[in-house]
Amino acid sequence: MSVLVVGSVALDTIETPFGSVKDAVGGSATYISAAASYFVSPIRLVGVVGGDFPRKGMAFLEERNIDLEGLEIIADGKTFRWSGRYHYDLNMRDTLSTDLNVFEHFDPKIPERHRKIRTVCLGNIDPVLQRKVLQQMDNPRIVVCDTMNYWINGKRDELLKTLKMINVLILNDSEARLLSGEPNLIKSAKVIRTMGPSVVIIKKGEHGALLLTDSVAFSAPAYPMENIFDPTGAGDSFAGGFIGWLARTEDMSEENLKRAVIYGSALASFCVEKFGVEGLADLTYLRIQDRFREFRELSRFDED
Amino acid sequence: MSVLVVGSVALDTIETPFGSVKDAVGGSATYISAAASYFVSPIRLVGVVGGDFPRKGMAFLEERNIDLEGLEIIADGKTFRWSGRYHYDLNMRDTLSTDLNVFEHFDPKIPERHRKIRTVCLGNIDPVLQRKVLQQMDNPRIVVCDTMNYWINGKRDELLKTLKMINVLILNDSEARLLSGEPNLIKSAKVIRTMGPSVVIIKKGEHGALLLTDSVAFSAPAYPMENIFDPTGAGDSFAGGFIGWLARTEDMSEENLKRAVIYGSALASFCVEKFGVEGLADLTYLRIQDRFREFRELSRFDED
Repeated sequence: MSVLVVGSVALDTIETPFGSVKDAVGGSATYISAAASYFVSPIRLVGVVGGDFPRKGMAFLEERNIDLEGLEIIADGKTFRWSGRYHYDLNMRDTLSTDLNVFEHFDPKIPERHRKIRTVCLGNIDPVLQRKVLQQMDNPRIVVCDTMNYWINGKRDELLKTLKMINVLILNDSEARLLSGEPNLIKSAKVIRTMGPSVVIIKKGEHGALLLTDSVAFSAPAYPMENIFDPTGAGDSFAGGFIGWLARTEDMSEENLKRAVIYGSALASFCVEKFGVEGLADLTYLRIQDRFREFRELSRFDED
Repeated sequence: MSVLVVGSVALDTIETPFGSVKDAVGGSATYISAAASYFVSPIRLVGVVGGDFPRKGMAFLEERNIDLEGLEIIADGKTFRWSGRYHYDLNMRDTLSTDLNVFEHFDPKIPERHRKIRTVCLGNIDPVLQRKVLQQMDNPRIVVCDTMNYWINGKRDELLKTLKMINVLILNDSEARLLSGEPNLIKSAKVIRTMGPSVVIIKKGEHGALLLTDSVAFSAPAYPMENIFDPTGAGDSFAGGFIGWLARTEDMSEENLKRAVIYGSALASFCVEKFGVEGLADLTYLRIQDRFREFRELSRFDED
């Protein structure tokens, strides 16, 4: 039941209307792994950091039972740093700076004994690297992939090659429109499914998420949050909760994919309640299940 | 089980990427009445048109069993005309022209024998006129009200007075933020409930709708539409389906308010499938119930 997670491990400097943090542990692989760790163990993380990566970052990952054999440490290098500022309504953010540092030459190497892992989550990195990971794996059963407008615009052909190798693509609504060239989200998912993934999940931020397969359309509600402190990592937490649930249950039926979307949404809702990864630090499986039930209450209605 | 509907009756000229119509029967009272007419009968419409209002417009309303005693006809005046153009993705529109004509001096007069009607729907008109309607009514039980940014910005004080007299306010997400001064939609509904309405419904276009009371948060999914021909009237059709269901059932419980939101969403989805009011012309109660069940399928998930 282990999951291989590949992505960035970063130090984030974040400003929101409610406060700020400097050099907080972040990155897609960090959020995905932490979220997934509440469902399965161990998570095998593959990434790269510099010698400056703080001890408390390692401690956070280790406490979550995340195996760091695949985390390359370049002692004389610096960790990937990202800095951003959120606007008043938290739906928009400006990237203030991006210093790739050791991440610029990241060349994911999958430890030999992890190549048989059947569940793989590819965080939002260069599609060339995502493919390189899959080429090292020994016939994974479920491959979940995230991407973003930067790759859709800048490396479209590479991304299209990667999409042929994956099962589930997770992206947000504007990315779905950009990738498909189709403004209608339902049509957009149809176009994207012809590119490879049989399952498309479209995240809509404060409006929830859509799960689209060739036979199912499922609309997951957003959790009604009054207090969002920091949206950083919400999308990665979604991916982590989603793949964690699938790995735990080893069930790719449509009914179970729906549950996975709700567990993803639940982890995203916990993530944004605190700064950085703090929201994923001290959850319990029971609290997660309670939130799952809150999602059900939120969207449930009966016939007369 | 009758419903009093007050609002505009108009002739709309609409351009969408899929075609156009000129001087089509429209207006908030028309859409609300037509949608509500599938649930209860008769609907009592209060509005005003000019001598140029076409016979086919009257025929459409009469066929839907809409009582026109309260529709004032100013023989030497012209009917309210609106003209708009939708963008490629149908989420944005430009108003090309608005000719109020006889609507400029609309002074709603409620026929004596309709003042005891218990269910009232106030379409999106000047809040002063909305209040004038309520002052003529004899203690209605349910008052549903629509409004828009034009009144929130331009007649805020009048709108605030009207809000004290209503039960349910229906508005879209940007209007909710504008009225409350609060970007978070959940907080925004809390603020709006302190202004009068105990129930706030926030429409989110392609993202569905939220129902918010002091004890319930309900998220209704949007119907996954591949082919939207004309979004005109979707919001009014929502209001009509919502109030129609409430009037039919005379049940203001939270479970039933949820159903009413789904029936509203169903009528909006039928509306946008065709041009103008055509989508509301030949429905059946059975087709509406089928769509209600499709909404359930769309948002239903089970615990493991």
